Amino acid sequence: MCKKFNGIGASNGIALAKVYILKEEQIIINKSEVKDIDSEIVLVQESIKKAKSDLQNLKKIAEEKLGEEKAAIFEAHASILEDPVMVEEFVALIKEKNYSASKSISEVSNKYIDMFKAMDDQYFKERAADIKDVTERLLRYVLGLQVLDLATISEEVVIVAEDLTPSQTAQLNPAFVKGFACNVGGRTSHAAIMARSLEIPAVLGLKTILSTVKENDLIAINGSNGEVELNPSDKNVWQELALKYIKEKEELKKMKNQPTLTKDGYDKFILEANIGSPKDVDSVLENGAEGIGLFRSEFLYMDNDHFPTEEEQFKSYKEVVEKMNGKLVVIRTLDIGGDKKLSYFNFPNEMNPFLGYRAIRFTLDRKDIFKDQIRALLRASAFGPLGIMFPMIATVDEFLAAKKFTLDCKEELINEGQKVGAHLEIGMMVEIPAAAVNAENFAKHADFFSIGTNDLIQYSMAADRMSENVAYLYQPYNPSILNLVKMTIDGGHKHKRWVGMCGEMAGEPDALPLLMGLGLDAYSMSATSILKARSIMSKLTLKETQELSSKALKCENTEEVLKLVNDLMKNK
Amino acid sequence: MCKKFNGIGASNGIALAKVYILKEEQIIINKSEVKDIDSEIVLVQESIKKAKSDLQNLKKIAEEKLGEEKAAIFEAHASILEDPVMVEEFVALIKEKNYSASKSISEVSNKYIDMFKAMDDQYFKERAADIKDVTERLLRYVLGLQVLDLATISEEVVIVAEDLTPSQTAQLNPAFVKGFACNVGGRTSHAAIMARSLEIPAVLGLKTILSTVKENDLIAINGSNGEVELNPSDKNVWQELALKYIKEKEELKKMKNQPTLTKDGYDKFILEANIGSPKDVDSVLENGAEGIGLFRSEFLYMDNDHFPTEEEQFKSYKEVVEKMNGKLVVIRTLDIGGDKKLSYFNFPNEMNPFLGYRAIRFTLDRKDIFKDQIRALLRASAFGPLGIMFPMIATVDEFLAAKKFTLDCKEELINEGQKVGAHLEIGMMVEIPAAAVNAENFAKHADFFSIGTNDLIQYSMAADRMSENVAYLYQPYNPSILNLVKMTIDGGHKHKRWVGMCGEMAGEPDALPLLMGLGLDAYSMSATSILKARSIMSKLTLKETQELSSKALKCENTEEVLKLVNDLMKNK
Repeated sequence: MCKKFNGIGASNGIALAKVYILKEEQIIINKSEVKDIDSEIVLVQESIKKAKSDLQNLKKIAEEKLGEEKAAIFEAHASILEDPVMVEEFVALIKEKNYSASKSISEVSNKYIDMFKAMDDQYFKERAADIKDVTERLLRYVLGLQVLDLATISEEVVIVAEDLTPSQTAQLNPAFVKGFACNVGGRTSHAAIMARSLEIPAVLGLKTILSTVKENDLIAINGSNGEVELNPSDKNVWQELALKYIKEKEELKKMKNQPTLTKDGYDKFILEANIGSPKDVDSVLENGAEGIGLFRSEFLYMDNDHFPTEEEQFKSYKEVVEKMNGKLVVIRTLDIGGDKKLSYFNFPNEMNPFLGYRAIRFTLDRKDIFKDQIRALLRASAFGPLGIMFPMIATVDEFLAAKKFTLDCKEELINEGQKVGAHLEIGMMVEIPAAAVNAENFAKHADFFSIGTNDLIQYSMAADRMSENVAYLYQPYNPSILNLVKMTIDGGHKHKRWVGMCGEMAGEPDALPLLMGLGLDAYSMSATSILKARSIMSKLTLKETQELSSKALKCENTEEVLKLVNDLMKNK
Repeated sequence: MCKKFNGIGASNGIALAKVYILKEEQIIINKSEVKDIDSEIVLVQESIKKAKSDLQNLKKIAEEKLGEEKAAIFEAHASILEDPVMVEEFVALIKEKNYSASKSISEVSNKYIDMFKAMDDQYFKERAADIKDVTERLLRYVLGLQVLDLATISEEVVIVAEDLTPSQTAQLNPAFVKGFACNVGGRTSHAAIMARSLEIPAVLGLKTILSTVKENDLIAINGSNGEVELNPSDKNVWQELALKYIKEKEELKKMKNQPTLTKDGYDKFILEANIGSPKDVDSVLENGAEGIGLFRSEFLYMDNDHFPTEEEQFKSYKEVVEKMNGKLVVIRTLDIGGDKKLSYFNFPNEMNPFLGYRAIRFTLDRKDIFKDQIRALLRASAFGPLGIMFPMIATVDEFLAAKKFTLDCKEELINEGQKVGAHLEIGMMVEIPAAAVNAENFAKHADFFSIGTNDLIQYSMAADRMSENVAYLYQPYNPSILNLVKMTIDGGHKHKRWVGMCGEMAGEPDALPLLMGLGLDAYSMSATSILKARSIMSKLTLKETQELSSKALKCENTEEVLKLVNDLMKNK
């Protein structure tokens, strides 16, 4: 019987195929006291060996299919099994409490999983999923259960599961696995990220799909909007959708080497990419980006056990600048604090960390740490055009202090005989309302602005985007937000500065026509959104976007704005 | 020898007199084990009786000198001694651990003091001071130490102390005690509030004053700016200052029944008062307020052990409206959550409570609780002009939902045959940047705006005003803030709505000329600031304030703005 579901579209594309129900044997922990302690310990050690060997294989498979960056997760997984503290805890519980191998592993791993889950930070929540993935594999070996190998699937299917672990996702062969649909998960889970790399359509968060499907059911999924139909009443509709999607994708590929142009030939808009590490640059180039609008430098600090040295930073920045081969690279200085902490530095406990000691507030206070970064950035500028961007600027005085510090470092480097590039821009994020409303004054001093929409919305609405209780206030299309974007752009243009956006909004199809109309110059987004954005821009005239945005600015709420956008876009 | 100090001006006025060094005998806890348990318990009970008798006397003295409202603190103090849980804990430690009476009282009270001190909330921090005050008195009786009676001071002195407890402050006779200067304390402590009521000049937070003074020293204090001079080199300067202060005060008193007028006769500005409870209305009337711009209703909820009923609320609102005798009373609906919690309701734990589930977000979600308040407000409007004001409005949709709910309640009341007043206004706080930048759209639906500067600054700067690390960003005079104030005023005026301000800024002498120039209609402040504000307004022409504010809007930072204000005001 036909049944429809709505989930979270986690990886674009349409799939229509037989279901493959992923149900693994249940893990049942042995709770009885063990007598032969030594053989339980040996069992743990042997199982760790088997699991590690699996992970090494998975890493190889992933390197071939997904590239080095995404394969790194399996190295991280192996390192969990190499953690001496955790392994010692397994052994200690067996020795001291006569726990079985499975009970001991389950207790210890649950302790860590709960600890990470409790942290109010997406990064650490994902760590909980990683530990679960690894220790479940270990438990299967300890209990002698089958460890599923999804790489052996050899007919066209859509996998239906409670959840897919990163290790399971990496095994998927896109030739046979046409898509997957899970009860849990969201767009930022590892499985979703891998699915997008593998270009396998995926819909997550479907809640009850697994308990509903039966063997031999047919399933259709739309990874773009999250729609799922079990035993679809009209297969043709889905086949047409699939064809349309493939056709669009082909057209987008052609966009790669096209210039960014509006329908009426305006050629001043620039499409850029956001990256988190030098490894991301390949995808940036593949997707035809015209620059890097945001390189988040904090990953150099977070994936580390010490503040990265000037040399370590220089190496990373130089690599990106060189690879971009003459295109502008904007690097944001350390944006730490708030929800982003460091293992090797204690930030003060604050009642409202999002309104606290973070980003430029921290680096201006700790010039010793700031200096290593600024010097590294200035030195990297010798290898290509570079923008230095300060985060969380609230006052003109803060910007002037950061700029002066940068220019002092530059002088110092030149005196030391070091090279600094000729194309160096010093700009700022506009993500605090005070900066947006007074943009004209900041534009006297800043070479460019880049609007950070996540924080700008959060502060303008006074609503924590992490809090479910006020999630309804995260409204990128609220006329108040559009007005702040307009003030920023107009303020920048008054002093002939370019104004970009590097928040999530810049890549949203619904936002593009509005932002074009407001006169935004640079659009920095996930590399994979660029071609779609170029295609959308090519279908719009500057004039119609200007008419749209001037109407949108006068709207009363988000709904009215989105209706205007939909009316314009429906015939494009 | 002459020595100068700078502290916190906590109560205005100048004093020049001999020092009275307040040094009490030190409390030394008896740590040895007691054998006669029964007599220790009797000692505790007798001492509680003596302390309670003191507090009853103090309450009477305070009622006469300070009025009922301020005397209520001693009832609260007495209730601490009547708390059966605490008294039982005293006794239990004596019985079970053979503690002495003093050790038992000290342990138990310190536990509560530490607990309240740890709470990140001014209200609870003050509770810690209250418990300390009461239990120290108790300890003095238990230990047979002298309990100082400051009411007996009979020569002109300035008291110098580590700290003054509320009970000590209440004893002061302004005929002899000309002022006090303490090592610790700030403007919001009970001692400071009482000093202002008694009109005794006070400087607090002087850190080392007590260890520096000697018997027979002469001391001069300026409670307005916190300056203190020990053995002043030029007594005449201080005497002139004192005369000038008294003269100004006399002049201000004349302002009480004067209309609020600018120098050039503009008569549309209105000076109003902020209040927290019906008890505050006397002071409002004494200070010539033209209305109440903010009645914070949350004190009805916080000083309670249950959500106040419709009847309980109605009684309070009606009392205020009646006392104000035809002048507009604006009552803000429940602004709870964030840093303000209730003992009888659990708010969700959030990472950033200031950006979370609070105020209108809570009441729109809990219409059962909201309804009691709205019905009470509407019924009170039958007794005089009343404004209902919603806090933390971020979107037009929220305002419309709250307004519709109010109008539905009104219809319901009318159907029940209840009376609702003819002069009823439904307006909103503008304290979220999104509301300020889009004020024009809100003004289509709201009868009035009232700008809440504390929160508006906090969100616009993305800086928690409670966090010391980012305290430098609390900048009321930053041009960004002035621009947001201007947008709010202009937006309101476009639809002929009156725009007020009820944040701290409205009463600041430096802010007044700027706000006048921006066209703010209503200024709501502490009642004690009103006459001074009326005097300042009378010295300024509308034109010069408009010139000032249009220059200030273009400034780059706070410093430049304040310089403009000072240049204008120095010859007034």
